[in-house]
Amino acid sequence: MASWDFTTNVTWLEGEKLNLGCHGMPDIAVTPPPQFGGEEGYWTPEDLLVGSVDSCMLLTALFFVGKYKINLKAYKSHATGNMEKTAEGLRFTGITVHVEGTVSEEAEIESFKKALEMAEKFCPVSAAVSCPVHLDVSATVG
Amino acid sequence: MASWDFTTNVTWLEGEKLNLGCHGMPDIAVTPPPQFGGEEGYWTPEDLLVGSVDSCMLLTALFFVGKYKINLKAYKSHATGNMEKTAEGLRFTGITVHVEGTVSEEAEIESFKKALEMAEKFCPVSAAVSCPVHLDVSATVG
Repeated sequence: MASWDFTTNVTWLEGEKLNLGCHGMPDIAVTPPPQFGGEEGYWTPEDLLVGSVDSCMLLTALFFVGKYKINLKAYKSHATGNMEKTAEGLRFTGITVHVEGTVSEEAEIESFKKALEMAEKFCPVSAAVSCPVHLDVSATVG
Repeated sequence: MASWDFTTNVTWLEGEKLNLGCHGMPDIAVTPPPQFGGEEGYWTPEDLLVGSVDSCMLLTALFFVGKYKINLKAYKSHATGNMEKTAEGLRFTGITVHVEGTVSEEAEIESFKKALEMAEKFCPVSAAVSCPVHLDVSATVG
């Protein structure tokens, strides 16, 4: 069966700061979220999780944008993950990805929405998340 | 109930390249993995997912390292996520985090392993992943 590995590495620096690396890519300095005592201005593991879903949705959508021959002019999104304190500890309860696409003509709006529906289904990172992932898609002609 | 939001944003640049942002943090340029046609040398959504687990495990472990009063001298880890092609598309089948800790004295080795066991249980990002997350912990005195 076809199989691929993805490997990262972590080095503890000091206090609650660490370097996150990945074979040859620029390191990412990571701390806990400021609301849990971390320093301001750093990526947190929680941000990286939400960002992995946010970015994978676009890359998966692009496959279907190509397949449906949509002339996509712009794509922006933002994703929000919600975390709650539960009896088991801190838990993500859901991630919502808000997508704004710009297409060339009216007729492509429905195809764009269909491309995102397919992306939601096939996005491997979204599928690897145990909390519900919601998509909120809008598209305009521009 | 106590609740927190984590928000990222994505801007499509060109081809299969995007910028991943997060309120004031340095942007991360993201592409698909080279094995799926992406350019070399960029973070991928898959790496970010694995890295979010890898980094969260350390930050959660540090809480228990403090609680158990372990004099931790160094911590390194690497995490590998395995992905397979299934009938439903590409799917993560498991993530393994390999941890190497350096403690001050022999007696702390067991406490360090216990701290990681607790981290595995309470790490919110690991809990947000639907595939199994395994921990492989070693500790030495140094």
